[in-house]
Amino acid sequence: MSLVLDPAAQDLLFREARTANTFTDEPVTDEQVQAIYDLVKFGPTAFNQSPLRITLVRSAEARERLVQHMAEGNQPKTATAPLVAILSADNEFHEELPELFPHFPQAKDLFFSERPAREGAAGLNAALQAAYFIIGVRAAGLAAGPMTGLDFAGVQKEFLDGDHTPLMVVNIGKPGEDAWFPRSPRLTYDEVVTTV
Amino acid sequence: MSLVLDPAAQDLLFREARTANTFTDEPVTDEQVQAIYDLVKFGPTAFNQSPLRITLVRSAEARERLVQHMAEGNQPKTATAPLVAILSADNEFHEELPELFPHFPQAKDLFFSERPAREGAAGLNAALQAAYFIIGVRAAGLAAGPMTGLDFAGVQKEFLDGDHTPLMVVNIGKPGEDAWFPRSPRLTYDEVVTTV
Repeated sequence: MSLVLDPAAQDLLFREARTANTFTDEPVTDEQVQAIYDLVKFGPTAFNQSPLRITLVRSAEARERLVQHMAEGNQPKTATAPLVAILSADNEFHEELPELFPHFPQAKDLFFSERPAREGAAGLNAALQAAYFIIGVRAAGLAAGPMTGLDFAGVQKEFLDGDHTPLMVVNIGKPGEDAWFPRSPRLTYDEVVTTV
Repeated sequence: MSLVLDPAAQDLLFREARTANTFTDEPVTDEQVQAIYDLVKFGPTAFNQSPLRITLVRSAEARERLVQHMAEGNQPKTATAPLVAILSADNEFHEELPELFPHFPQAKDLFFSERPAREGAAGLNAALQAAYFIIGVRAAGLAAGPMTGLDFAGVQKEFLDGDHTPLMVVNIGKPGEDAWFPRSPRLTYDEVVTTV
């Protein structure tokens, strides 16, 4: 009742959208990924630091290498999803800060000269952007299957470098047969929200 | 072109929505927060672990205590926003897992018996939910002002307990005068997305 967002959009993004475990064969195009990115890039991050990086696993050879690093239960869906993306945080995001946050170019040196501070900020803000990305996948009429059951060190070594920390792997496509479990229960408002 | 989501909803949630630094006096009601929660609670988390907790700072006394722990530049907006919420991660979320993920009740003991594993999972998944919450605030026709410029240890000690890690503080309300900077540039698709 209190929401301004159209009910159909609420359904598309949250109520009817589900984490898919199976997918149809319909490909996910670069144009779709670009449209998703061009929408969700506007989601807020601290100092507009935008640390999320996306690796699209398109070749059969790369897909095979990735599957080896997934938990056993995640291997079949990672092997068969139309598109698989590795989401990571760029711990050297501060190099882009003077361009990304022109109102306050000193932020780069004032807050992010030390690597641990950058890693903390990149981890949190890339996670926010990962959520925006999942919402964006749904906005494209596709289902996302985010997964954290994987060998993170292995994925980093195989696909990234020491400056990029993997956050999750996301399967993307049109949901297939028996794509999901029944919806699990959510915590009630009173279990989550307290007032002081 | 490739998106299914209605363009008005794209604008509301991403393109026209901005991080507000000033707000009108119009209150934000518990009914609005409940409507936001009842939408974004469906956003996905690993094992449906749902570790986000929300503390609404409603009393003048609590607001004053919170402002003391904010970075100087964030104090005026934290003092004047219609509603301020502390978002935190519940590191003991695993106690609810058998109820939240009935398909696989062993997950609680198999993956989350150790506190460091819980803290890592809670931090990432609560950050995803913080992003869903920001999107939900916008879905309610309100502006969010997420902030990480604060004394996290101070906020934890003052408002939470040892099992809850604060992630950010979010100002919520209708945007006021001069509510934001001009939109900062975003990284291009090619700066963010690579293909292997």
